[in-house]
Amino acid sequence: MKIAILAGDGIGPEIVAQAVRVLQALRSDGLKFELEPGLLGGCAVEAAGEPFPEVTRKLVADADAVLLGAVGGPQYDALPRRQRPEQGLLSIRRMLNLFANLRPAILHPELANASTLKPEVVAGLDILIVRELTGDIYFGEPRGIERRDGQRVGYNTMIYSEAEIRRIAHVAFQAARKRNRRLCSVDKMNVLECTQLWRDVVTETAKEYPDVELSHMLVDNAAMQLVRNPRQFDVVVTGNMFGDILSDEASMLTGSIGMLPSASLDDRSKGLYEPIHGSAPDIAGKDVANPLATILSAAMMLRYTFDEEAAAVRIESAVKKVLAGGYRTRDIYEPGTKKVGTAAMGDAVLANI
Amino acid sequence: MKIAILAGDGIGPEIVAQAVRVLQALRSDGLKFELEPGLLGGCAVEAAGEPFPEVTRKLVADADAVLLGAVGGPQYDALPRRQRPEQGLLSIRRMLNLFANLRPAILHPELANASTLKPEVVAGLDILIVRELTGDIYFGEPRGIERRDGQRVGYNTMIYSEAEIRRIAHVAFQAARKRNRRLCSVDKMNVLECTQLWRDVVTETAKEYPDVELSHMLVDNAAMQLVRNPRQFDVVVTGNMFGDILSDEASMLTGSIGMLPSASLDDRSKGLYEPIHGSAPDIAGKDVANPLATILSAAMMLRYTFDEEAAAVRIESAVKKVLAGGYRTRDIYEPGTKKVGTAAMGDAVLANI
Ligand SMILES: CC(C)[C@H](C(=O)O)[C@@H](O)C(=O)O
Ligand SMILES: CC(C)[C@H](C(=O)O)[C@@H](O)C(=O)O
Repeated sequence: MKIAILAGDGIGPEIVAQAVRVLQALRSDGLKFELEPGLLGGCAVEAAGEPFPEVTRKLVADADAVLLGAVGGPQYDALPRRQRPEQGLLSIRRMLNLFANLRPAILHPELANASTLKPEVVAGLDILIVRELTGDIYFGEPRGIERRDGQRVGYNTMIYSEAEIRRIAHVAFQAARKRNRRLCSVDKMNVLECTQLWRDVVTETAKEYPDVELSHMLVDNAAMQLVRNPRQFDVVVTGNMFGDILSDEASMLTGSIGMLPSASLDDRSKGLYEPIHGSAPDIAGKDVANPLATILSAAMMLRYTFDEEAAAVRIESAVKKVLAGGYRTRDIYEPGTKKVGTAAMGDAVLANI
Repeated sequence: MKIAILAGDGIGPEIVAQAVRVLQALRSDGLKFELEPGLLGGCAVEAAGEPFPEVTRKLVADADAVLLGAVGGPQYDALPRRQRPEQGLLSIRRMLNLFANLRPAILHPELANASTLKPEVVAGLDILIVRELTGDIYFGEPRGIERRDGQRVGYNTMIYSEAEIRRIAHVAFQAARKRNRRLCSVDKMNVLECTQLWRDVVTETAKEYPDVELSHMLVDNAAMQLVRNPRQFDVVVTGNMFGDILSDEASMLTGSIGMLPSASLDDRSKGLYEPIHGSAPDIAGKDVANPLATILSAAMMLRYTFDEEAAAVRIESAVKKVLAGGYRTRDIYEPGTKKVGTAAMGDAVLANI
């Protein structure tokens, strides 16, 4: 088993280093895998002139799973579009066919205060957003900016095929089966034909999952309901664009995006795992970033790609103990808890593995 | 001056009736206008077979302003797409060229508890979302569902021209000038060329407004920041699709969408005014709906279309007094306040005009 380690930019190297320590601790404990580092994003542009260089392509093609820190930073904003760090991320998703993005939004009871929402609204929050990740307006053609009748016009194409919708629907229904058996599919069928097809195909797929309760919601309403009563949701499935927006909204409901991992999977459980937060260039290199989202991403990797449920749970339990023990990085610090840096937080998790 | 009154479906007739009473009270007080009723939405489908019949087209074409209740209801869900109530709404926006949708999200201090967000996060919230309303993926061609290579494919086109972006940017900059001179433009320029052009044109337009501070934010981050710290925003400008999602999210931050009006304007201040909430079929005809959003929409009409600032302020002050006096419809009721029905709430506002 081979894991490609792409630390990326900003705080990426620091937080990935802690997740790697955790993986290594499990290895010395019996789990077998190789860890192979590689470059993605701004660091790859600096080293190789492009955000997703050939050598990284080969590395991730050969790997069973990828652990990613984060990419991007203000120093890359002026680069031409194809060199920007996020193009590396989009290319890797597409190349590896990582169509299923799983983004849990979970409120850890110890961090309930961190939410801007009232405790009674978010206590026990546990939503899983399943976002389609390789289709939609992100990749649709035609696209571009051109002159028409003497003025610039910008355009993109939102597009989904039946097969693309069906395979993500299956992932979502199956995920719902392992949870509370409720699935809410989000679309904008009253305006967009593309999402009318989405609703039709999800509804057809539901016939294979009579044990899962399916509902549909318009995206504008979903953006409201997440604020009004987020606990009404169990699993939410939606397209790439709406999923980008709603999953970020949902994660912020927890108040601690430094805590939230994600998985992006292909159809044979090969996956890329990354924290949902960004590269936070302003705090890079200062040993203050929270490594827990990355560490929990490593746990997701053990669960989804390597089917090592026990090892995944060991990591997750260690994180729970660390929180219960009062350890907090700056982003989740409250008076009365112990403020620690990135490396010390890694130490604390290791001590509880 | 002529105002078309389109009560629409569900609670529409009840809430519009109260706004009409308020307008009539001002008329007997010196303001001159005719009120002409017409059909839009499901009621128009029932009466005339289509959601936006010819006679309504003529009515709104001749009017200076339109006051709308709400359209839609479950009994219309099974109709073919072109007969659905919301198609009436989309057609009227497009026919009247109502490209500028102004959606304030204001927290009335008396209703601070209604928000699901902590009081310290939303106290004093006052955001204006400026949403482009006649372009984007809502109207872009090509669009449809068709068979390709033996499977169904659904697609839509996100598209903006320079001229469309510039005119909504002007509306937003001018609105910001009348407020706190801060404008945040929301796009997804890191993925979508269409919104790269958006950012470019908004940035160019900013040169004419050196007194307004312009910032840019990606839509996923905006969805997060609205939850994290909504008071960082003054005016937000964005396209039709992102505006649909973000304005609903923003309105829910106040906890009282029964309170929020909206205006949709063309380039000569002709406008359609409507509450941002829907037709709430479940409570239709029960005299429990909150008419204040519609009454406040009438105030916006007086301000934007008729330039009657004093009359607008009279309505708004009356609503403030009614809230301060403890009157509440069911949606905003709290123990210790006086629960009233739709008509009684109208009475209370009239008594304070
Ligand atoms: C960086 C960007 C291209 C990316 C996306 O929009 O998918 C990010 O926002 C995410 O959600 O992973
Ligand atoms: C009813 C629907 C077509 C409409 C829209 O999407 O614009 C509504 O959600 C709104 O925001 O006014």
